[in-house]
Amino acid sequence: MVRTAFSLNEVLSTTFTMSVAGNDNGILKLLEDLLRILKEENIFDPNAPVVNFRHPTDLKELFSFKLSQDGSTPEAMDTVIRKIIKYSVKTFSPNFHNQLFAGVDKYGMVGAWLTEILNTSQYTYEVGPVFTLIEQEIINECLKLVGYPLMPDADGIFCPGGSISNMYAMVMARYKALPDIKKKGASTFPALACFTSEESHYSIMKAAHWLGIGTDQVYKIKTDESGKMIPAELRNAIQEAKSNNKLPFFVNATCGTTVLGAIDPLHEISRICKDESLWMHVDACLGGTLLLCNTYRERLTGIELSDSISWNPHKMLGVPLQCSVFLVKGKKALHETNCAGAKYLFQQDKFYDVSYDTGDKSVQCGRKVDAMKFWLMWKAYGSIGLDISVQIAMSAAEYFKDRIKFIDGFRLVLPDFECNTICFWYIPSSMRGQEETQEWWDELSRITTSIKEKMVLDGTLMIGYTPLPNKNLVNFFRMVVTCHPPPSHTDMDYTIKLFQKYGEKY
Amino acid sequence: MVRTAFSLNEVLSTTFTMSVAGNDNGILKLLEDLLRILKEENIFDPNAPVVNFRHPTDLKELFSFKLSQDGSTPEAMDTVIRKIIKYSVKTFSPNFHNQLFAGVDKYGMVGAWLTEILNTSQYTYEVGPVFTLIEQEIINECLKLVGYPLMPDADGIFCPGGSISNMYAMVMARYKALPDIKKKGASTFPALACFTSEESHYSIMKAAHWLGIGTDQVYKIKTDESGKMIPAELRNAIQEAKSNNKLPFFVNATCGTTVLGAIDPLHEISRICKDESLWMHVDACLGGTLLLCNTYRERLTGIELSDSISWNPHKMLGVPLQCSVFLVKGKKALHETNCAGAKYLFQQDKFYDVSYDTGDKSVQCGRKVDAMKFWLMWKAYGSIGLDISVQIAMSAAEYFKDRIKFIDGFRLVLPDFECNTICFWYIPSSMRGQEETQEWWDELSRITTSIKEKMVLDGTLMIGYTPLPNKNLVNFFRMVVTCHPPPSHTDMDYTIKLFQKYGEKY
Repeated sequence: MVRTAFSLNEVLSTTFTMSVAGNDNGILKLLEDLLRILKEENIFDPNAPVVNFRHPTDLKELFSFKLSQDGSTPEAMDTVIRKIIKYSVKTFSPNFHNQLFAGVDKYGMVGAWLTEILNTSQYTYEVGPVFTLIEQEIINECLKLVGYPLMPDADGIFCPGGSISNMYAMVMARYKALPDIKKKGASTFPALACFTSEESHYSIMKAAHWLGIGTDQVYKIKTDESGKMIPAELRNAIQEAKSNNKLPFFVNATCGTTVLGAIDPLHEISRICKDESLWMHVDACLGGTLLLCNTYRERLTGIELSDSISWNPHKMLGVPLQCSVFLVKGKKALHETNCAGAKYLFQQDKFYDVSYDTGDKSVQCGRKVDAMKFWLMWKAYGSIGLDISVQIAMSAAEYFKDRIKFIDGFRLVLPDFECNTICFWYIPSSMRGQEETQEWWDELSRITTSIKEKMVLDGTLMIGYTPLPNKNLVNFFRMVVTCHPPPSHTDMDYTIKLFQKYGEKY
Repeated sequence: MVRTAFSLNEVLSTTFTMSVAGNDNGILKLLEDLLRILKEENIFDPNAPVVNFRHPTDLKELFSFKLSQDGSTPEAMDTVIRKIIKYSVKTFSPNFHNQLFAGVDKYGMVGAWLTEILNTSQYTYEVGPVFTLIEQEIINECLKLVGYPLMPDADGIFCPGGSISNMYAMVMARYKALPDIKKKGASTFPALACFTSEESHYSIMKAAHWLGIGTDQVYKIKTDESGKMIPAELRNAIQEAKSNNKLPFFVNATCGTTVLGAIDPLHEISRICKDESLWMHVDACLGGTLLLCNTYRERLTGIELSDSISWNPHKMLGVPLQCSVFLVKGKKALHETNCAGAKYLFQQDKFYDVSYDTGDKSVQCGRKVDAMKFWLMWKAYGSIGLDISVQIAMSAAEYFKDRIKFIDGFRLVLPDFECNTICFWYIPSSMRGQEETQEWWDELSRITTSIKEKMVLDGTLMIGYTPLPNKNLVNFFRMVVTCHPPPSHTDMDYTIKLFQKYGEKY
């Protein structure tokens, strides 16, 4: 790309430069404009389409993505911003059930905006004094919630997502089993073996690759019909790994599997981990939110027996993305595992108590402030308010399941659900009462993708579908019910009616 | 913690619940309130203290960090938000030079807020159509900028920070050298060796730990007096590693070392990497921003010869945190290295062109949208505008250096600088003209921390200091000059005068 070089005098003389150079005077004005646009576009209108879907090639026509040498006028930027809004998915629509996250809470949103404007990093007390203490407080509340000891006998850190939280767990488990691996690397040690259910999240596989453990060393443990890890299979796999001269070190139990929302049998897995001296991690990225609710928290009983936990409040609870917390037992364990002691950042001769600097606990250097938006929600509603919020969502999910159980055409994949996902097929009347051959199922699978397509093109509903090859199941829908916007029975009825409408066209 | 369980009817009858349940109607109202608070607190006042510093124990007294069962009234939340602002560091102050990031650009900020309100993940086109195409466009512009081939012959991904970007590079280098390691793990392969300068960022060490390579396998190459890697030392280290039966696979060259801002000799390092068939990564997290500016981009000549690059536009350029881009040569290389093929998310029977789904290139699953805020800045200013923005910052940095060179008491650590960091000692008049013994230097080191402390307690300036043990240098100041707020000569003069004021009290 050929570009002209400007002398500084030349550039300083342009009015354009003045708008760049003087921009921070204009920042609040521009943010006011943004808020006005959000209102004018009626962004939270629950009756608006959940998406104005355009295929990639069409969207490129509608929207000037191209960047160039020249900038844009404020008017052009106004148009750009409105188009971004128009063609983005409205995850805060009551008709968005496509992912494990959806809309966000209002105080969470305020926290997110405030975090952005106070642009800083979480690594030292010096540049994030308030955020350091906020993170400490909310980690302690999370430790209480899961039944771990409090700081400093346990610890935690906010991570950019559940996959990285799960990697923390594997790294800590390995460091505990073989501390010398930190210095020497894995090549001089036996192959390590880790264990996770066949229904668990793929991040365990990705972590095994990245951490040099190897995806072949991940034993995928069979699950029962409801998607829970079978403890006897775990015992067998550990023995098998040992007889293959591998060193078992890590078991991942899931609270809320990605598709079925199943919760693994924590007590039995803990028993096995204790017998075999293995690190027990709980991936509660999805299910952890149930701990907030007294009605449902017993579903996760046994989680307190684990060594570490991942939980994503950005999923069901509606904290803005990203908000993932990793919790771990052990005094200074997080620090010892991850420290590198960089002198330029974690000077020990600083004038304040440097034990408040959290940066050397982290694999990251700069770390986005993710704790404050969650803390602000908790501060606003109290644990009672968060309890209620979860209760409302779960009640809507229960209502949805109870309703479709008795409506022709709907068929539940499981009779019940543990977390907030309800899996089902919709069978059009033309296919009911027939012999359910392989062809019949293949056809149902195609219809499932077709219903999804039509709903998206119409902007009426977004809901995910997936097959489950482990269980030999073809494409089915996964209805996710989250806390934001707080779901009502009417929202559930709307979803049901839509399936009846779209599903009957086959 | 004992908590009362509520029946749903009970909770639905409380007014409190209504405020939780109905919250999404109130979201824009609350965001308007936030904007009003930001204005009332005069948050961008350049004359306000850069920080109202309180020690952790004192801040805990001033601020109710405690979370509890009960929520807070809107009035109490108003107070909380104002206190968060009051006691947070004003990184957008012209007197914040403490980190490699500082304030943010106004369109970057609009992008950040818009990203938050459109709460979604970057993994599939389905839930982030606009963001997918935006990321693609800006990655292509970045590829152009560094002189790589365009997509699909090269690729890129936005990551939650430079440390993770650097980890991507090491994982890709290893996968290229030993593709079977993905499945088998590192235990059956020889020890791998990687090379980075002694002045490079500690993330290479942390990555070596996490990835199972081992920190002992990181060869820290000596640097010359200006902090650049010495190529002959690199050659020697590679031979040494080989003679120790290690397999060299990865060289990290730095463009903008963390402390001195040094740029490694890229052409010579590339020559060595080609001779030895090693992956050449460039950590340009800091220095990459100079590529935007025609006046300075030649300092990074040779970067196009590398295999991969990390660049953090959230540092000097003032894109809001986090914004880190990883670029890599090779068709589908990013995908092949990282894919796991999760069926529930990356269904191949979707109704749109699934090659637009980027999620399986990533080690993350959910991935925050970090591209849009950067894209919006580029769209607003064009590459010409970004060029100017960098030029203004570098010109201020040059001015600062040229001024202090001739002022008594200031002593530059290096006669010149390459990126935007100027390192210097301030020697109080009482210490000038003396024999510079070890005791003298120790005293200067203590005075450096003391000056820093006083400036922070007064809220007049935030500037970092560090020793440089590799070079046997005691604590010195590191002045970082960034693009936002656009620095003026007056800002630089202010900093100089402050040193003269505080520095004379010893």
